[in-house]
Amino acid sequence: MVPTVCWHEGAIRLLDQSRLPEHVEILECRDVESVARAIRELKVRGAPAIGVTAAMGVALGAQLSEAENYFQLENDLSGVCELLAATRPTAVNLFWAIERMKRTLHELRSQPLSAIKTGLVRESQSILEEDIALCKAMGRHGARLIEDGQTILTHCNAGALATAGYGTALGVVRAAWEEGKRIQVIADETRPVLQGARLTAWELMQDGIPVTLITDGMAGIMMRQGKVQLCIVGADRIAANGDVANKIGTYSVAVLARAHGIPFYVAAPYSTIDLKTPSGNDIAIEQRNPQEVTTMLGDRIIAPKGVSVYNPAFDVTPAEFIAGIITERGVFRPHEVLRHFS
Amino acid sequence: MVPTVCWHEGAIRLLDQSRLPEHVEILECRDVESVARAIRELKVRGAPAIGVTAAMGVALGAQLSEAENYFQLENDLSGVCELLAATRPTAVNLFWAIERMKRTLHELRSQPLSAIKTGLVRESQSILEEDIALCKAMGRHGARLIEDGQTILTHCNAGALATAGYGTALGVVRAAWEEGKRIQVIADETRPVLQGARLTAWELMQDGIPVTLITDGMAGIMMRQGKVQLCIVGADRIAANGDVANKIGTYSVAVLARAHGIPFYVAAPYSTIDLKTPSGNDIAIEQRNPQEVTTMLGDRIIAPKGVSVYNPAFDVTPAEFIAGIITERGVFRPHEVLRHFS
Repeated sequence: MVPTVCWHEGAIRLLDQSRLPEHVEILECRDVESVARAIRELKVRGAPAIGVTAAMGVALGAQLSEAENYFQLENDLSGVCELLAATRPTAVNLFWAIERMKRTLHELRSQPLSAIKTGLVRESQSILEEDIALCKAMGRHGARLIEDGQTILTHCNAGALATAGYGTALGVVRAAWEEGKRIQVIADETRPVLQGARLTAWELMQDGIPVTLITDGMAGIMMRQGKVQLCIVGADRIAANGDVANKIGTYSVAVLARAHGIPFYVAAPYSTIDLKTPSGNDIAIEQRNPQEVTTMLGDRIIAPKGVSVYNPAFDVTPAEFIAGIITERGVFRPHEVLRHFS
Repeated sequence: MVPTVCWHEGAIRLLDQSRLPEHVEILECRDVESVARAIRELKVRGAPAIGVTAAMGVALGAQLSEAENYFQLENDLSGVCELLAATRPTAVNLFWAIERMKRTLHELRSQPLSAIKTGLVRESQSILEEDIALCKAMGRHGARLIEDGQTILTHCNAGALATAGYGTALGVVRAAWEEGKRIQVIADETRPVLQGARLTAWELMQDGIPVTLITDGMAGIMMRQGKVQLCIVGADRIAANGDVANKIGTYSVAVLARAHGIPFYVAAPYSTIDLKTPSGNDIAIEQRNPQEVTTMLGDRIIAPKGVSVYNPAFDVTPAEFIAGIITERGVFRPHEVLRHFS
């Protein structure tokens, strides 16, 4: 599969997810503004993938800097970090990656400028490689939760496309599949931006993992009919109390799962866990353009002109609805997150 | 507002709902096949509106018949009824209206052919006028459930567009609004065919009733945030035990409403109550073209080619989730339906 994001000869190459599944196109970002735009416009999305891209954005900013000393470079990168941090407010991996790059910059401060620049590229590459390793570890831990013959419902895309590769929720599915379990996935289409229809279905079909696409409103009746044994989703931010912000509609899936006695799991690496945020109430929820709701992917108008619209990009699922959080260190109850990751 | 359906100089005029809200177009059906096609292709939809249209279809079939005696006419109309009855399997109003027209035909059997033909047009007109009267009666009864300042969440379109006028669920909203209650509506967009976005939002905006459009996945979090005080939906068929078949996604709304302590009501006239169907398990659920899910209104492709899709047009909400059924005779608990309507 084409990588979600990679560093290529002094530029960042992104698989343009706004064009999938009809068009498989690579977007090459040669300056930081185009990286920021790609994040804002969901050409790259998914909390871990946003983190990796932002890290590479900082590395790119360093390469392009004409600074003649460390303080000038630090000043340039401070602007770069600010620009990147302002793209999207909810996924904490963005801020985590930017902080990590700032820390690396500081650690390299006594080195020559060329070594600092190389070091920042190397660090962003480490974040990318680590992300894939984290996904594979989550996959190993999470796969134990899935039994042969089960059907897993997922919402949005927490797959290879949402990470540097392999995926969080879909990484767990992939690991179970690779172990030979005969499983199936039900993908919520995930309006308004249709990450389930466009990305999850596409990604699983590429790997030959059986997937059935449904509209978001069908999840409840599928559960009632016994067609779902497990729900696994990703996360954009996990608060210290185990509350989880994830794509809008996740909360409904969690409530429906509980009503039908179906375990609901969240898969996410440590970089998604935000101990500085006490609870879900403290998570900033991005409100996006009403046009996402009133049109279909910007093309087809589907609602009356001037209609009032509510369009939060995320919702918060309280810890009490979550059977477990699948991390690279194991599967924990949401309230145990604080203990394991502080 | 343009009427949903009406008889006009020997033809049936339909407001083409597949074109709303961008285009307000009238479709004139001059033969029975085009009436059947209009029902199949959702140019007219909503259980009561389908009933009225089918009745007019039978009347149209009678006008076009070249029968020279009653038995030839009966034979012609038997074919017409079969064609219309095969259009959609779930909404019972279709079968109810066809049966009523057959009964009228039988009652008029001793009359001259011209009188029979006129009588059938008159009967279809009675069904239409009765439908509006039933909606207004439902409105009066249902409006008592709504308090000043409340927000009502609805799914799909159970409005003037789903009936001969005024609406079932939206008729209740309209009645409360006409009583001067300052209310608001939250409309689920209702994928795949988007009746909420295209029809409910449009219809309420025409009347100046405040409406906010959301994607189906947002209903849960809106409820959790206290933004919804009441849910009211329509019905395509109500079984003798009070189970309700309605647009896909209704069951999820009902489960979410219960989880948040929000009363969930169904508004429907007697013609939607099907005492011959013991429970929801016995209701035939129409499976529609996967293209409704993989494209946006047939235009925009939004899913990978060849993806497996599940596309039931309806789901069944068990009686236990329903606070009351709003009918023209009053508001009843679902299990009381059998007693009041048999």
